[in-house]
Amino acid sequence: KIQFPLFSITSHFRDKQKQDSTKKIIHSIKVGISLVLISLLYLLDPLYEQVGENAIWAIMTVVVTFEFSAGATLGKGLNRGMGTILGGGLGCIAAVLAHNLGGVGNSITVGASVFFFGAIATYIRLFPSVKRRYDYGVMIFILTFNLVAVSGLRTEDQEVWKIARERLLTIVMGFIVCICVSLLVFPLWASDELHDSIASRFQHLANSLQGCMEEYVKFDSEKENKPGPSFTLCKSLLDSKSKDEMLANFAKWEPWHGKFGFFYPWENYLKIGEVFRDLASTVLVLGGCLQASTTPNMALESCEAIGSRIVWTLRELGDSMKQMRKCEAEPHISAVRSELSLLISTSKLAEIENIDALSTASLVFL
Amino acid sequence: KIQFPLFSITSHFRDKQKQDSTKKIIHSIKVGISLVLISLLYLLDPLYEQVGENAIWAIMTVVVTFEFSAGATLGKGLNRGMGTILGGGLGCIAAVLAHNLGGVGNSITVGASVFFFGAIATYIRLFPSVKRRYDYGVMIFILTFNLVAVSGLRTEDQEVWKIARERLLTIVMGFIVCICVSLLVFPLWASDELHDSIASRFQHLANSLQGCMEEYVKFDSEKENKPGPSFTLCKSLLDSKSKDEMLANFAKWEPWHGKFGFFYPWENYLKIGEVFRDLASTVLVLGGCLQASTTPNMALESCEAIGSRIVWTLRELGDSMKQMRKCEAEPHISAVRSELSLLISTSKLAEIENIDALSTASLVFL
Repeated sequence: KIQFPLFSITSHFRDKQKQDSTKKIIHSIKVGISLVLISLLYLLDPLYEQVGENAIWAIMTVVVTFEFSAGATLGKGLNRGMGTILGGGLGCIAAVLAHNLGGVGNSITVGASVFFFGAIATYIRLFPSVKRRYDYGVMIFILTFNLVAVSGLRTEDQEVWKIARERLLTIVMGFIVCICVSLLVFPLWASDELHDSIASRFQHLANSLQGCMEEYVKFDSEKENKPGPSFTLCKSLLDSKSKDEMLANFAKWEPWHGKFGFFYPWENYLKIGEVFRDLASTVLVLGGCLQASTTPNMALESCEAIGSRIVWTLRELGDSMKQMRKCEAEPHISAVRSELSLLISTSKLAEIENIDALSTASLVFL
Repeated sequence: KIQFPLFSITSHFRDKQKQDSTKKIIHSIKVGISLVLISLLYLLDPLYEQVGENAIWAIMTVVVTFEFSAGATLGKGLNRGMGTILGGGLGCIAAVLAHNLGGVGNSITVGASVFFFGAIATYIRLFPSVKRRYDYGVMIFILTFNLVAVSGLRTEDQEVWKIARERLLTIVMGFIVCICVSLLVFPLWASDELHDSIASRFQHLANSLQGCMEEYVKFDSEKENKPGPSFTLCKSLLDSKSKDEMLANFAKWEPWHGKFGFFYPWENYLKIGEVFRDLASTVLVLGGCLQASTTPNMALESCEAIGSRIVWTLRELGDSMKQMRKCEAEPHISAVRSELSLLISTSKLAEIENIDALSTASLVFL
């Protein structure tokens, strides 16, 4: 019985690693394909005659925009597009205004506007809410504004608009290649990754809790001093916040696909992740307590009862989430919940885990 | 006594916010200054005659490389430089080889090398160790390789080398402007931020632990149901891992300055951060236990004694770290340590915190 979860965890790890490296290879090949596709602008004579030297902007867009998940690619591409249009538009206006002044005023106006817009946009970029979703767009805004405003000094009014239009066109070409390859050839969705990672945490936590209980019923002499593999998984849950937020951010950019519709409530995943981090820290401390304790344990039966019910609830919830069906065992869970409330009063130890598990459960059903 | 830590925490928060926004304004102005400086390549006629259209590469370098902290700017700049040189060199070789083949073989060779290098470099980029420090460099490698190899098709052999040299020169110019402004005008060091953040955590944890103890001696009727402000700080410690790693990464790029020499052991900061996260989760669970407990507490004196000694140790260590002096109270701490070992046997509750605090202490002194 002790061997089983340990074995399933290692095999789960091996499966996941294999899956991950397959995904990485697919991503690399996709990048290679898009690079070759966009290089055709240079390699094929009829295309080159159309776009000319501006093709470098298309290549740059592909290299910079193509990210691992479809959501990240879309987000970066849209950011780049918006930044280019805004920056280019404002830059053209600044260049034309400076042109009309003429003389030394020309250079001074351009210099002042570069300083002003650069500093303001950099300040805006540092706000956490902007940084999270629009960091890249603001950077491209600064870049495009500068390039257009400054190079406008050296070209005619008509020429500025033409250059801006042509560059925008090639950037759009690069973006289209990225999106087509990213979304149509073996798409790697950030939303799938977030969903699977959250759903599998139910199992990890259930395993860790079971490990705790096994530790609990063991006699002192049998205790090993090193924590089992389920605790390592539990510990890695504690550091999951930034990764979850990043994935949810990408998932928000992703269009309707598979089981996820538009306006899918990704925030709830973050909330569940938060509850899991609390729960994981509780389980870790509990495990530490149990391993360090040298006195005989009391209230054995009630604690075991509480523990096994929580493990069962977690597994059930995890399964229903993984398969995205409404939990069939809902009446059972309510029954277990009231049973637990009864048991709590007799045992102090399992109190905190309990509260957390209940809040998890209620969150999933709300 | 209860009001005092609460007040000091809020005033600490206000100070920190004020400091942060000053830093942000300084950073924005610095970006503005560097943008104007690099725009002079376009604005001043004698400079423009020297560099010509290649000035856009200098502007691009400044916009893309200038980051908040000096370390991040240096790291990104060096990455960009290395990527450009490697990618440019290999790209030139590929272009020359393709030229010698001539005809259709020419385009096919370039296309194949673009696919091959693009896919391999993208795969390498996904390794966590490469991603952490050299992500940007590999991206620039792919970009430069592609641009040089592909545009080499349309230019003469001699021309390719000339373009590569000129672009590299303008990128170096942009880099120099970035470094000068970032390091010489009010430098914002990532190492300072990491050091201060780690040192202040000693105080946060000591405050939280004190809050726990105050909760502990209170009667049931006095207990409020909401956690105090010290617990919010404690909770934010749990999510500090990714930020710490980022700062340590930047700090490694930073040259000798102030109190930090070359090869400063930044890894130890990460280790202390790890211990703090363990300790914070223990304190949080302890706080939760105490708030939820309804039975009268036993072993009051010994727990209080342990708690107050740990708080004192944490404060002392935090002070010595902040001022970067060898802790004067070292013999005291050893005494407290042996006292604690004696007390442990009488109380089970404080066992875990104890172990963690000791490991913290030993880590600082090793």
